[in-house]
Amino acid sequence: MNLRGLLLCVCIAFLLMSCQSSEPEVRWALVIHGGAGGIDRDRMTPEVQNAYHQALASALAAGEEVLRAGGPALDAVTEAIQVMEDSPLFNAGRGAVFTHEGRNELDASIMVGSGLDAGAVAGVTTVKNPILAARAVMERSPHVMLSGQGADQFASEQGLETVTPDYFYTERRWKDLQQVLQGGSEVAEISENGDWKFGTVGAVALDLDGNLVAGTSTGGMTNKRWGRIGDSPVIGAGTYAANDACAVSATGHGEYFIRRTVARDICARVEFLGEDLKTAAAQVVGEQLVAMGGSGGIIAVNRAGDMVMEFNSKGMFRGSVNSAQAAQTAMFKD
Amino acid sequence: MNLRGLLLCVCIAFLLMSCQSSEPEVRWALVIHGGAGGIDRDRMTPEVQNAYHQALASALAAGEEVLRAGGPALDAVTEAIQVMEDSPLFNAGRGAVFTHEGRNELDASIMVGSGLDAGAVAGVTTVKNPILAARAVMERSPHVMLSGQGADQFASEQGLETVTPDYFYTERRWKDLQQVLQGGSEVAEISENGDWKFGTVGAVALDLDGNLVAGTSTGGMTNKRWGRIGDSPVIGAGTYAANDACAVSATGHGEYFIRRTVARDICARVEFLGEDLKTAAAQVVGEQLVAMGGSGGIIAVNRAGDMVMEFNSKGMFRGSVNSAQAAQTAMFKD
Repeated sequence: MNLRGLLLCVCIAFLLMSCQSSEPEVRWALVIHGGAGGIDRDRMTPEVQNAYHQALASALAAGEEVLRAGGPALDAVTEAIQVMEDSPLFNAGRGAVFTHEGRNELDASIMVGSGLDAGAVAGVTTVKNPILAARAVMERSPHVMLSGQGADQFASEQGLETVTPDYFYTERRWKDLQQVLQGGSEVAEISENGDWKFGTVGAVALDLDGNLVAGTSTGGMTNKRWGRIGDSPVIGAGTYAANDACAVSATGHGEYFIRRTVARDICARVEFLGEDLKTAAAQVVGEQLVAMGGSGGIIAVNRAGDMVMEFNSKGMFRGSVNSAQAAQTAMFKD
Repeated sequence: MNLRGLLLCVCIAFLLMSCQSSEPEVRWALVIHGGAGGIDRDRMTPEVQNAYHQALASALAAGEEVLRAGGPALDAVTEAIQVMEDSPLFNAGRGAVFTHEGRNELDASIMVGSGLDAGAVAGVTTVKNPILAARAVMERSPHVMLSGQGADQFASEQGLETVTPDYFYTERRWKDLQQVLQGGSEVAEISENGDWKFGTVGAVALDLDGNLVAGTSTGGMTNKRWGRIGDSPVIGAGTYAANDACAVSATGHGEYFIRRTVARDICARVEFLGEDLKTAAAQVVGEQLVAMGGSGGIIAVNRAGDMVMEFNSKGMFRGSVNSAQAAQTAMFKD
C-alpha cells in the first residue's frame, strides 16, 4: 500500500469512528416537572398514575409544538406551565394547596437566559395563571418581583384573566389542609393521595436560536402562614437561566432551596467550575441539599441540549422531549 | 562561611521577608453601608455630610462593641443595622421612602455563614426594626421569607416592637414622593437632598469564632408600586453569607441585583474560581452590573478579615472597623 492509500485508510477510519461516537445534534429541548417528593408506586392507583402521565404529556406537547415550529423558549415554557397550572393534579394554579387560613396564595417566576431578564409574583390570589403574571412583570413593568394585592392589581391592569377564589378550590387539597390542621403538625408530610407537600410545576427549554428559559409556578406548601414565600418566585433559588451556563427550575422544600441558591449554584458550577450539567446538579441536589435535609429536585437544560432531571426524593413528576428524542414521562425513581 | 552558617543566613532572610510582608492578623471585622448612588460633594452641605459621618460612626460603634467583646457576628450585624434603621437619614426603618400610595413598605434579610441559616421579610409596615423581624423569621419560624400583613403579624406575635404608620413619616421622604408624582416619572432619580433613590443599609461581619454574617434593610424605592420587592430581602441577591466564601450586603437598583444574583455571585467567584474578594466584587459590580446598567454597590468581608467596599455609583455611605484598624467612615469616591 502506498502513502496515498495509507492516508485514505486513516481518513476513512476517522470518519467511521466519528460517525459511531456522535449522537444526533439536539436542536431544541424541553424538560418539565410537576413536583417532587414521596411519590410512591404503592400509594398510587394505575388510574392516578395514568392521569399524571397524560397531564405531563399534554404539557410537553404544548411546549414541543412551539419549539418544533422554531418558536421561542419563552413561549414554550409559558405554554407548558400553563397546561399544568390549569390541571387540578398539580400544586400550581387550579390545584394549588391551601394556606393556614384556607386561602390559595400563588407564586411564580420566569427567567430568560439571553439577557438575564426575569419576572416574578408572590402571593397572588386572583390571577388564573401566575406564570403569565410573572412574564408580564418581566415584559411590562420596571420591576422583577411583585407581591400580594399589588401583584394581583398589576396582573389585572395588564388584562390577564382573573378568577374568584373558588376557582382554586379542589376537594383533595382542602382535605389535605384539614388533615394537617387536625393533626396539629406544622405542615403536611404527605397528602392522602401520596404526593408531596411541596409540589410545584416548572419547565426549562432550549430553542432553535440557542436561547435558554426557565419558569416555575406553585401554590406553596399546605398550611403555610404569615405570607410565606418559598423558592419558586426567587430568582437564583427556584428559577435561573443564563445562556452561557444553563436553565434550571426547582421543586422541593423551598426554604433549603433559597438558602442554597440552588438554581444559580448549579449554573455557577457549570460556568465557573466547568462541571457538566449532570455532575453540577448531582452535587447540589444529591450532596449539598441532602446534607442539609432539603428534599426535592430540579430539571435543567443547557445549550448543547443536555437534559437533566435530578431529585433526592422518592420520585418526581417529570417529562422531556427534544429534536432527537420522542416525549417521555416518568414519576418514580427507576 | 560553612554550610551551617549559610543555612542560618537563609533562615534569617526568610524570617525578615515574612515579617515585612505580614500585616497584623485581623481577628474580627465589620463593614457597613448606608446606600449607594448620586452622593455628590457639591450637593451636600458640610452639616449634612457631618450628620451622615456621625450616624455611620454610631452604627459601627454599636457593632464593634459586640465583636470586640467576643460576641457573635449575628449580634454585631443586627445592632449596627438597628442604629441605621432608627436614624431618619437612611432609607430603612424610620427614614424609609414612600410608595406610590404614600405608604412605607419595608424589606430586610439576614444570613449566617456557618450553617447557611437565613431569614427575610418583605413589605412589612408596622415593625419598627425590620432586621429584627428577619432575624426572628430565621430563628423562630420554619420559613426563610415572610411577606406583607402575615409578616407583620408574625413579628407582632414574636413580641417585636411595632409602630403606627406615622412613625415612618419624614418630611424629606414625603417631598421626594411628591416631586416624583408631580414630575410624572416612574421613580425618583435623585432626591433634593442629593441622595439616591435606592438607598439601603447593610452590614457584614466576621467574629472571633470565624463566623461570617450579612444583613440588609431597606424602604425600597420612592414611588414603588404593586407590592414591588427589591433585592434586599432576596437571599443571594441583596444578602448572602457562607463561611467558606464571604459575606455580602448590597445596595442599588435592586432589579439588576436580583437578575445578577449579585451577593451569591461574588461569593461563588471566590469559592469556585478562587478569586480574591476584591477582584470578585470588582468583576460583578464594576463590570457585569455596569454592562447591564445596574447602579449600586456592595460591602463584603471574608474569614481572613479582608474588607471590601465596591460601588459603581458616585458614592456610597460606608464605614469599616476591625481588630487592627480604627473605625473609618466615607461617602464619596475618593
